[in-house]
Amino acid sequence: MQGDWTIIEGGVTAPGGFRACGVTAGIKKPRPDMALLVSDRPAALAGVFTTNKIQAAPVRLCRERVAAGRGRAVVVNAGVANACTGPGGMEDARQMQQWAAAALGMAADDVCVCSTGTIGLRLPMAKIEAGIRAAAGTLADDGGAAAARAIMTTDTRPKECALELTVEGRAVRIGGMCKGAGMIEPNMATMLAFLTTDAAVEPAALQALVREAAAVSFNAISVDGDQSTNDTFLCLANGAAGTTPLAPGHADWARFAAAFTEVARRLACMIVQDGEGATCFVTVTVRGAASDADARLAARAVANSLLVKTSWFGGDPNWGRVVAAVGYSGAAVDETRVDVAYDDCVAVRGGCKAADTALADLEAVLRRKTFTVTVDLHLGEHAATVYSCDCSEDYVKINAEYMT
Amino acid sequence: MQGDWTIIEGGVTAPGGFRACGVTAGIKKPRPDMALLVSDRPAALAGVFTTNKIQAAPVRLCRERVAAGRGRAVVVNAGVANACTGPGGMEDARQMQQWAAAALGMAADDVCVCSTGTIGLRLPMAKIEAGIRAAAGTLADDGGAAAARAIMTTDTRPKECALELTVEGRAVRIGGMCKGAGMIEPNMATMLAFLTTDAAVEPAALQALVREAAAVSFNAISVDGDQSTNDTFLCLANGAAGTTPLAPGHADWARFAAAFTEVARRLACMIVQDGEGATCFVTVTVRGAASDADARLAARAVANSLLVKTSWFGGDPNWGRVVAAVGYSGAAVDETRVDVAYDDCVAVRGGCKAADTALADLEAVLRRKTFTVTVDLHLGEHAATVYSCDCSEDYVKINAEYMT
Repeated sequence: MQGDWTIIEGGVTAPGGFRACGVTAGIKKPRPDMALLVSDRPAALAGVFTTNKIQAAPVRLCRERVAAGRGRAVVVNAGVANACTGPGGMEDARQMQQWAAAALGMAADDVCVCSTGTIGLRLPMAKIEAGIRAAAGTLADDGGAAAARAIMTTDTRPKECALELTVEGRAVRIGGMCKGAGMIEPNMATMLAFLTTDAAVEPAALQALVREAAAVSFNAISVDGDQSTNDTFLCLANGAAGTTPLAPGHADWARFAAAFTEVARRLACMIVQDGEGATCFVTVTVRGAASDADARLAARAVANSLLVKTSWFGGDPNWGRVVAAVGYSGAAVDETRVDVAYDDCVAVRGGCKAADTALADLEAVLRRKTFTVTVDLHLGEHAATVYSCDCSEDYVKINAEYMT
Repeated sequence: MQGDWTIIEGGVTAPGGFRACGVTAGIKKPRPDMALLVSDRPAALAGVFTTNKIQAAPVRLCRERVAAGRGRAVVVNAGVANACTGPGGMEDARQMQQWAAAALGMAADDVCVCSTGTIGLRLPMAKIEAGIRAAAGTLADDGGAAAARAIMTTDTRPKECALELTVEGRAVRIGGMCKGAGMIEPNMATMLAFLTTDAAVEPAALQALVREAAAVSFNAISVDGDQSTNDTFLCLANGAAGTTPLAPGHADWARFAAAFTEVARRLACMIVQDGEGATCFVTVTVRGAASDADARLAARAVANSLLVKTSWFGGDPNWGRVVAAVGYSGAAVDETRVDVAYDDCVAVRGGCKAADTALADLEAVLRRKTFTVTVDLHLGEHAATVYSCDCSEDYVKINAEYMT
């Protein structure tokens, strides 16, 4: 399902009926750190969250809202994660929700709350209150870019994406923004992602679509293998484009779902490309696996291996580390059938060094800023892709100095 | 079971009836890279190996010997791992075994073969043959130190340990050597360890003891979370001290087993202390877990977390990353009961920041070269300990430049 859409400028406010903004609440530093995203009408709400058993207060609040399937606004702060903050942290999250609802003139139940930043600190509530008030007065039809900037933590650039496609003969838009940078790994990590669409979508269908899209986008990326307490991927579908509510069975559903997934996938790749200290973007594909689960296990093991990631940073075609990672991944492996290629350059054939490939050719691939590592297990028909990056000395530098 | 032994100088040749040596075969560089370890009489042989599904040729050969339960010698080379080398690699390992057996005047079945180094390269067989010949003429009663040096790869120092205890009124010795450095993680990694004892031990009892000792030593350490294709922990018990064969039920078994485990634990800690780029040694203990498996899962998740390891390097008491790692470990966790302490300094009580602990006090612990992180889950009586180290910029530097 390829390309039945047009990529356009913008992000969460590209679809009709959404406004957003980013303001400086000064939660940790004097920089934009609070965003609002608002639909001008009731919208279907869907979301998926971190699988970490330690869940930040705002995650627990959002879960309740997503269970209801309806919402209109999201308030986000960066700087403090409001995680590991006990009952007081939950009160803070609810207070934040109420302030935003009051400022926007809607019910508290219409508002989702997200936080990202340092774990264990309480939110500076006076700053939060003032920030929400300022944000409510700053909402704009073209505020998506400002919102994308305000949700950043160690990200070096804002991440947004939008596209347009035709549904029932009408122009429909899907937009999104996200933040990532560190602590990224399959099954969500300190990552916030927000998609909007002016299509109407049945809430249950939207929830299923969000889950499926997450599996091949935000859950298929790896920066460092750690999972955070705050990961959240929310979607609002407000129907401003005037379509009938979409759901599986609708003639345009598959096209809409593919376009939606593409926005999520592009945003996820932006997170990897902006991974802390990353100098290259690597697509790891495992094919020929005996099952989908095996393909995912093997691709994740390669994409997460610290030894593999440091070899990418060093420009070193150390395929032995790739094979070793596949070996400990838990996936079924027959050593004598394993092939490994860097782009079109075959490094391993049948478990051994491919004799006809020159080291210089492999090294040339590793010098590219973007390349693919393909592992073929030759045991079945199943495949999986994980987007990864290298691990540099800068990654260590950034994470050695984050908190203090 | 503490302290019923005396730590003595030496390593694998401290026990009676063992000779060893290290020589320069020049496999990759002009430095000592080949070791021989020989018992002057038949010995019980036991061992455990990597759980990686991709297993180096020498590992497969050693598994056969360990299944037989008897052996007399081990030949080891560093520089080339003889992994991912196909049927030719297996022939090379058997050839190495035969050359060593011929040079030592014993049957091929008496000889184990171990290799460590780069994956995917074939062994330079002419150098191996010459090296084995040189080694056989260099064996010495005090050759343990030279052997410990010859098995090193990126290790910065040799690792050996020995102790003496009394069994049946006789002095019995247990000695050992190992190499580690990178690619270390629970369930064995590029790690070779060899223990010797002049006690007589029933082969089945020795195998069970090796397995149990590995669980709390070589399988309870973490440098980078990668598992290698070559990990091997072998033990030879030759009875030169004149004891009757030990086994569970023998009056001195528990004391012997505790001493044996202590040698393995000390060697394992040396591997962590010499972890690639490591600047501190951290004991991670999880207690109050609902099960042994949960305790191990949680301790390993903390010990392996790249974000936790980089925070240690930065001297940053970022306990939120510790709590987050416990949360994604898979262990049962009740956030409101979790306590975390750095040495005696409580950072987290009931899932929240301990208000009475000053950041400066936590930072003082982090400045120590050796400290303990204790997580109490308050859900049960089970505990586990994993020995870990920090991840520094030097780790990345070392591993970015290993192969080429």
